[in-house]
Amino acid sequence: MLTGLQIAVIGGDARQIEIIRKLNELDVKLYLVGFEQLDHSFTGAVKEKLNNMNLEEFDGIILPVAGTNLNGEVETIFSNEKVVLTEEILSKTPPHCTIYSGISNAYLDEIVKKSNRKLELLFERDDVAIYNSIPTIEGVLMMVIQHTDFTIHGSKTVVLGLGRNGMTISRVFHALGAKVHVGARRKEHIARTEEMGLESFHIKDLEQVVKDADIVINTIPHLIVTASVISKMPHHTLIIDIASKPGGTDFRYAEKRGIKAILTPSLPGIVAPKTAGQILANVLAELMSEDLMKRKESS
Amino acid sequence: MLTGLQIAVIGGDARQIEIIRKLNELDVKLYLVGFEQLDHSFTGAVKEKLNNMNLEEFDGIILPVAGTNLNGEVETIFSNEKVVLTEEILSKTPPHCTIYSGISNAYLDEIVKKSNRKLELLFERDDVAIYNSIPTIEGVLMMVIQHTDFTIHGSKTVVLGLGRNGMTISRVFHALGAKVHVGARRKEHIARTEEMGLESFHIKDLEQVVKDADIVINTIPHLIVTASVISKMPHHTLIIDIASKPGGTDFRYAEKRGIKAILTPSLPGIVAPKTAGQILANVLAELMSEDLMKRKESS
Amino acid sequence: MLTGLQIAVIGGDARQIEIIRKLNELDVKLYLVGFEQLDHSFTGAVKEKLNNMNLEEFDGIILPVAGTNLNGEVETIFSNEKVVLTEEILSKTPPHCTIYSGISNAYLDEIVKKSNRKLELLFERDDVAIYNSIPTIEGVLMMVIQHTDFTIHGSKTVVLGLGRNGMTISRVFHALGAKVHVGARRKEHIARTEEMGLESFHIKDLEQVVKDADIVINTIPHLIVTASVISKMPHHTLIIDIASKPGGTDFRYAEKRGIKAILTPSLPGIVAPKTAGQILANVLAELMSEDLMKRKESS
Amino acid sequence: MLTGLQIAVIGGDARQIEIIRKLNELDVKLYLVGFEQLDHSFTGAVKEKLNNMNLEEFDGIILPVAGTNLNGEVETIFSNEKVVLTEEILSKTPPHCTIYSGISNAYLDEIVKKSNRKLELLFERDDVAIYNSIPTIEGVLMMVIQHTDFTIHGSKTVVLGLGRNGMTISRVFHALGAKVHVGARRKEHIARTEEMGLESFHIKDLEQVVKDADIVINTIPHLIVTASVISKMPHHTLIIDIASKPGGTDFRYAEKRGIKAILTPSLPGIVAPKTAGQILANVLAELMSEDLMKRKESS
Repeated sequence: MLTGLQIAVIGGDARQIEIIRKLNELDVKLYLVGFEQLDHSFTGAVKEKLNNMNLEEFDGIILPVAGTNLNGEVETIFSNEKVVLTEEILSKTPPHCTIYSGISNAYLDEIVKKSNRKLELLFERDDVAIYNSIPTIEGVLMMVIQHTDFTIHGSKTVVLGLGRNGMTISRVFHALGAKVHVGARRKEHIARTEEMGLESFHIKDLEQVVKDADIVINTIPHLIVTASVISKMPHHTLIIDIASKPGGTDFRYAEKRGIKAILTPSLPGIVAPKTAGQILANVLAELMSEDLMKRKESS
Repeated sequence: MLTGLQIAVIGGDARQIEIIRKLNELDVKLYLVGFEQLDHSFTGAVKEKLNNMNLEEFDGIILPVAGTNLNGEVETIFSNEKVVLTEEILSKTPPHCTIYSGISNAYLDEIVKKSNRKLELLFERDDVAIYNSIPTIEGVLMMVIQHTDFTIHGSKTVVLGLGRNGMTISRVFHALGAKVHVGARRKEHIARTEEMGLESFHIKDLEQVVKDADIVINTIPHLIVTASVISKMPHHTLIIDIASKPGGTDFRYAEKRGIKAILTPSLPGIVAPKTAGQILANVLAELMSEDLMKRKESS
Repeated sequence: MLTGLQIAVIGGDARQIEIIRKLNELDVKLYLVGFEQLDHSFTGAVKEKLNNMNLEEFDGIILPVAGTNLNGEVETIFSNEKVVLTEEILSKTPPHCTIYSGISNAYLDEIVKKSNRKLELLFERDDVAIYNSIPTIEGVLMMVIQHTDFTIHGSKTVVLGLGRNGMTISRVFHALGAKVHVGARRKEHIARTEEMGLESFHIKDLEQVVKDADIVINTIPHLIVTASVISKMPHHTLIIDIASKPGGTDFRYAEKRGIKAILTPSLPGIVAPKTAGQILANVLAELMSEDLMKRKESS
Repeated sequence: MLTGLQIAVIGGDARQIEIIRKLNELDVKLYLVGFEQLDHSFTGAVKEKLNNMNLEEFDGIILPVAGTNLNGEVETIFSNEKVVLTEEILSKTPPHCTIYSGISNAYLDEIVKKSNRKLELLFERDDVAIYNSIPTIEGVLMMVIQHTDFTIHGSKTVVLGLGRNGMTISRVFHALGAKVHVGARRKEHIARTEEMGLESFHIKDLEQVVKDADIVINTIPHLIVTASVISKMPHHTLIIDIASKPGGTDFRYAEKRGIKAILTPSLPGIVAPKTAGQILANVLAELMSEDLMKRKESS
């Protein structure tokens, strides 16, 4: 239980519902900003406006996964009001107050730095990335099935990168009967690919490998699927790029050549918002529990 | 090679393209009826009208997977002309001529019987059903991912039947991390389920098992998912019914109770027409090859 | 619970302990013949001599998995006494008394027939065969690992037959990273093999397929791995034959050619007697429960 | 091809044969020390005594995986002669000469340091450790099957550590139908375990988790399976410890309590020497190829 904690949830989408549900169950005192139109009510969680709140007592502020935009605005799906997060607001919180967001940008970085608060970026955590690989792979499956007239089973699928998403994707496509070829640079990734019973190749040989590829899935956030690579693919190849924007594919050239290429950097919130919310909720609960314990120990 | 065979392909959809492609490669002399608007041309395959053809020389007639309707009309996606198959037409073919269709109906059964020709129903074959389970499971995956806000991974998925489709579905959902519970009646199916590392239960206990089910997939062509069963499910349960029409679900009651239930009896042609066509093409080629060999032996 | 049932367990090995344990838990009144040296005692189970028992009250007799030998002797691991089952003994039991054995022979068939009792052969049941495929595959793994200097992972493994054992073996070797090639005759087995993501071939092409095989596992109880087939194998190939005696391999020729070939028809009792006993115990309990219910219904 | 390289292979076991075979194929000029009794001969590889060789021309020296003992002696399975590696010998090689060994010790470290040569420890490489996890898991399977009377399938198996070996072990035991519980400390390992569809727990809860464990497999090279942990296990639990010597188990206490515990730190060379040798051969060839390329570039 997290009894005693006081947290503000500011804006967000369906994922925030799961966070609110979980923290509410753990007895956190919750203040919800930007949720006026949310039908569901949580006993004990108070819907409130940002400037009405007594910020001095907050242990944490939970932002949407996108954080703020470059003007400090926070996206609020369940409200028509504009909510802006400022350095002034952060400065009113107690020094130990933590700001939780998925990602950050120059604006959020700056107000956090100036107010000297701790910023916890959930999407930079390895555990969150691995948990998110689960809804991600299901989104990838859906898109591949929708955008092909052949089955994954029996297809030659090239997966680029054996990181947090790449390992999940490779395993699942293998289980579905695809002939999976994993492209990597690190020798231990090549070794792990072989151990998993998949074909491995060095990224430098990508042009050769795509010559008869049916599906190419990129997870590497650098330009890997270049025009030169795309020019070697058969016309029916489908490219799915899940690397963070702008992806690792030359989309302009793919379109020119008539090769279908889709950039889908944030599948979890789209295909399984409930699960994606639960992932964040679980990690938030764990982080808050650890923080609480540390503060108790040090006090 | 099937050199010497003369086959008429009458009507059909994208799947027929793969059949034509394959048989053409195997040097079958092909006459295509109802393909006027097909862009693609196959060297050696002749587009022809049914009544212009010299039927006396045909070794086989390939109908669409749906066969004919009850008036004898054959569906032709690539033509505006109405094509009707009659007993008279069949009677003009030589006695050894085989009619290939996916399924049959009273009309087709009758004209085949009266003309005393052999009717080969591809969809009643075990091997075709198992091959078709591959595009089917991919269609099921797509639908489940589309119609839920949670991941398959971690969900309790109840699969009804461990037959030709049920085994594939169970294996794939298990590989995706679902908690798979297979309902069956035959003791050897219960045993196989356990061997596969899945939970098994007897169909008679279904009402108990669905109480916390997230996904229910029915493959049994009898009313199994009754109103009584549906009344025990949580509201968020998704029912996918892939049994042949009218399925095994009380859809009326599901709708009344607000439980999403989807009947999808013919996924292969929808989600992966190319693969679905190749499956038919391969089996047709094999059957024709065996027939050819038998006739050569007996002559 | 099976309260009211009275069963004699006559002879057997460690597997019988699990049967006794299970039936005892289910409140069966048990008489144990040939267990004098068994340390473990089960409250309520009586160790008894065959000719001291009042056979008129028995609902069933459980023999060892091997049944009797051709002289009617029953193997008793936990006793020095000779136990012989005769028609006379069976005739003293009530007409509904069922004889349970793993397999039968001419002698057992005859005394059962003459006394007009029901003989239930557990090893002929599909469910028992599938459950037994679990300890069998683990025995196969152990033997392959012991008898090769290379890993299963990466090896070309040829599995003959996709029946009750073949399916389990193929799945497990695939999961371990072997390149599995399944030889079968039935088209639906070929189809299932492909669906599982494995290579398939028709048994008639076996000579071709073994040319670079590292491991060959036969499950078919006919001479399949002939001298001609063996002559095509590389010298390091290991043959494991789990078909019932005498197996499907020309062992004489294999030895002559210096190819290691091992016949292992009854692995479950050897590698995992506890699990093998539990499998039999569960099936026996189920059969007795069904019998009890039927008799209650008909009385 | 590695034409032009001159390498000494000094001592070793069956694994060295594969190294010799591979490097010979790649046209390395090989000198074999301690292989007098090796039947097999490799065209172009010269069997030689250490003190007869012109060490000034060597590009590398390959030691057995154990390196030397603390007196500098090198194990030679295929020879009766004593072979000792000294600083003096190393100093005669050209400065770029690399010493390849599996592991090192104080003696080897010192002579390498004094002679200022490069020491490449293959067993400290991530890729080698991952490749070696393949024969390791097969050895673990064999030992578990040999030392239990129940099947892996259905057993509760606790795997400690999700590192290079732990991931392979967890995956394979899951595929075999075990109920796998992975104990780890790092949050990303917990996340990966969940993604793989396995149960995870924090190492600090180990005492609780082992209470009904059938099999415990430790991969962590610290004392983890303490007397206190062992005291919570059921009597039939089997402990396999594959961490490097002295393992992470209190073997003394396990024996006292009658719990079977086996330390098996170097399975690859035992269960699959051929594969284990090929793993080393492939990595050596790759390393030498890269070295060669670098030296060519810099010259």
